[in-house]
Amino acid sequence: MESFNYLSIRYNKDEKKLQILDQRKLPDIEEWLVCEKPEDMITFIKQLSVRGAPLIGVAASMSLYNHILYNPQLTKEEIVKVSQELRESRPTAVNLMFAIDEMMQLKEGNVENRDYSATRFGEIAMRIIRNEVDMCDKMSKFGASLIQPGESILTHCNTGSVATVGAGTALGVIREAHKQGKNIHVYVDETRPLLQGGRLTTYELEREGIPYTLICDNMAACLMRDGKIQRVLVGADRIAANGDFANKIGTYSVAVLANHHNIPFHCVAPMSTVDIKCLTGKDIPIEERSQTEVQGASGAFGQVRWAPKNSKTFNPAFDVTPMTLVTSIILDTGILTKNDLNKLSE
Amino acid sequence: MESFNYLSIRYNKDEKKLQILDQRKLPDIEEWLVCEKPEDMITFIKQLSVRGAPLIGVAASMSLYNHILYNPQLTKEEIVKVSQELRESRPTAVNLMFAIDEMMQLKEGNVENRDYSATRFGEIAMRIIRNEVDMCDKMSKFGASLIQPGESILTHCNTGSVATVGAGTALGVIREAHKQGKNIHVYVDETRPLLQGGRLTTYELEREGIPYTLICDNMAACLMRDGKIQRVLVGADRIAANGDFANKIGTYSVAVLANHHNIPFHCVAPMSTVDIKCLTGKDIPIEERSQTEVQGASGAFGQVRWAPKNSKTFNPAFDVTPMTLVTSIILDTGILTKNDLNKLSE
Repeated sequence: MESFNYLSIRYNKDEKKLQILDQRKLPDIEEWLVCEKPEDMITFIKQLSVRGAPLIGVAASMSLYNHILYNPQLTKEEIVKVSQELRESRPTAVNLMFAIDEMMQLKEGNVENRDYSATRFGEIAMRIIRNEVDMCDKMSKFGASLIQPGESILTHCNTGSVATVGAGTALGVIREAHKQGKNIHVYVDETRPLLQGGRLTTYELEREGIPYTLICDNMAACLMRDGKIQRVLVGADRIAANGDFANKIGTYSVAVLANHHNIPFHCVAPMSTVDIKCLTGKDIPIEERSQTEVQGASGAFGQVRWAPKNSKTFNPAFDVTPMTLVTSIILDTGILTKNDLNKLSE
Repeated sequence: MESFNYLSIRYNKDEKKLQILDQRKLPDIEEWLVCEKPEDMITFIKQLSVRGAPLIGVAASMSLYNHILYNPQLTKEEIVKVSQELRESRPTAVNLMFAIDEMMQLKEGNVENRDYSATRFGEIAMRIIRNEVDMCDKMSKFGASLIQPGESILTHCNTGSVATVGAGTALGVIREAHKQGKNIHVYVDETRPLLQGGRLTTYELEREGIPYTLICDNMAACLMRDGKIQRVLVGADRIAANGDFANKIGTYSVAVLANHHNIPFHCVAPMSTVDIKCLTGKDIPIEERSQTEVQGASGAFGQVRWAPKNSKTFNPAFDVTPMTLVTSIILDTGILTKNDLNKLSE
C-alpha cells in the first residue's frame, strides 16, 4: 500500500492513518475525520460525511484493509463479517458492493484459494483506486480534446473529485481543459434542491483557481441565448443501451435548452455506468425524495423552510435525457456519437 | 370611501383604519400592520412589508387619503410635501408614481382647479382600486376562456393577489378557471433566487384550496415530457411593441421548454405594461442584483449561505422572452395572438 492524498480521502502508510474529508461541512469548513476501525467508516458513510458512489467504494475498501493490517489475529470468519457490514452500509451504492466483493476476491475461484492477508487486501485496494483514477484520466483527456480555447462551459450538479478519488467525470474534463491552458470559464448550475453545484462544484473550482460563475438553474437559458455558453458537460448515473441516460434532476432541462440554442451537449461517464439490461431511458427507475427538500434547503450551512408547512411537492432525484438531445457520450473507452449508437442498434 | 378587505390590504371606513399584511413574514405568519400616518407606509414600503407594483400604488394612495381625512387642517403645501415623500419611497415603482400623480390630480388642468378635500382624494383612491380590480377581472375572464377542463398549468414567480388589490394576472386566470369549476391543477416553479413561487404563490393557492404542486425550477422540463403540464401562464413586467416581454428570471427558460414540448405558453398582463417606446425585447434594460441572493437564501424564514463566501455569481432580476415563443398575450383589453402582432407590425 502506498500513501495517497486525494481531495476527499487520504492515507499515511507509515502511521497507518486513514482520513476522510467531512463533505457535510463543505464549502466553509475543511474537517478531516480519522477512521480507526470499520465501524467509524460505516458511521461516516451513513451520516453522509463520505458520499459519491466511487468514493464510498474506495473508502470502505481502505477501511477494511487498514482493519486487517492493524489486527493480524483476525480470523477469516471475522473478516467476512466485517466486510458484510461495510457492504451493507449504503444499500443503493452498487460501487460499494462491487468494491467489497473485489476485496473479498469473490470472483477468484475456490474459497480455499482466497488470500486474506493484509498484503493481498492492500494490493486489491490499490488496484481499485488506480482503476478509478485511470478511468477519470481517460475520460478527461477524451473530453478535453473537444474543448476549444476560450470556451465557456455549463455544468450541472457535482461530478468532481469530492465524490471520487480521480479527477471526476464532467468536472474531470473541465480540470483537464484548464490544465491544458485552454482558458475556459465554467458556469455552475446550483442544482436544486440539494445544491451540489452551489456547494461542491464551486468549492472544487475555487480550490483549483478555475474561473467560474455560479447561477440559479433557471438562468442558464438566457446565458445560452446571449451566446455566453459554448458547451454543456454533465455526468450520468446510469446509461441505457440506446444512449438515453439518467442523471441529477435538471439535466434533461439543460439538454432541451442546449438543443434549442444549438449548443453541444455531452455526457461524461465511465463505461461501468452503461447498463445494457436497460434498453432505453424508460427502463431506468427514478427515485422520488422527500417533500422537505423542495420546501426549503438544509445542510451543515443551516436549515430553512420557505414554503408552507404542508405544501405538496414533486421531488424526483433524477431525470432521463434521451440520446436524441446528446451530441456525444464521453466514456473512458472513447467518445460515442449519435452515429456510433445508431450503428450499434442496427 | 368604502371599507374593503383584500388579501394584502384592508380598510375599515368607520374606524378610518388602514392595514397592510406584512408580506415579509408569509407564508408562516399572517401579521397585519396598522398604517396610522404616511411615514408608517413609507417604512412598510422600504422594508418590503408591502411589495408588488400595483399594491404599492394603492397602499400609498390610501395612506395619503387617510392622512388628509385625519388631519383636515393640512395646507395644500403640506399635502404636496407628503405626497412627494410617498412618491419617492420606491424609486423604480412606476405604478407608485402614476398613482400619486393621479391622487394629486396632476393631469387635471390648472393647479387652481385641484380639489384637495378628503372626499376628492377618497374618490380618486377608490377609482385607482376599482381600476386595478377591474383590469384583473378582465384578464382573468379572457384567460380562463382558454383553459380546458382538467388541465394542469405551470406558473412562474408570484402574479397573484399579494402584489395587487385584484385577483392577479397569471394567477388571476388560474383563480377564475378554478372558480369556474374547471378542475385544474397548478405546478408552481419555486422561482430562485427570491422564491416568490415557493413562498407566495403556494400561500395563495393553499389559502384558496386550489390544488397545486411545488417544484424546483429545474423540474418543469421532465413534467412537460411526461405530459403532466398542458399550459404555461406567466406575468410580465414590461412588454415591448413587438410582443417580446420581460418577466422574472427563469421565464425565458420555461418558454423554451414549453415550445420544445408543444405546450401553449401565455403571458398575462394589463395593457399598461405595454411600453411602446421599447420596439423589441432588446430595448428592455435588465437589472442585475446582488451576489448574496444566489449564494444562498434569506427572508423572514431565516438566512443561509451554501456557496463559498467569495463565489462569483450572475443574478439578473429578469429575462426577456421573444414573442416567437409566446402563444398569446392575455391583456385586459383582449387576447393578442402572434398573428395579431404580425398584423400590427405590418
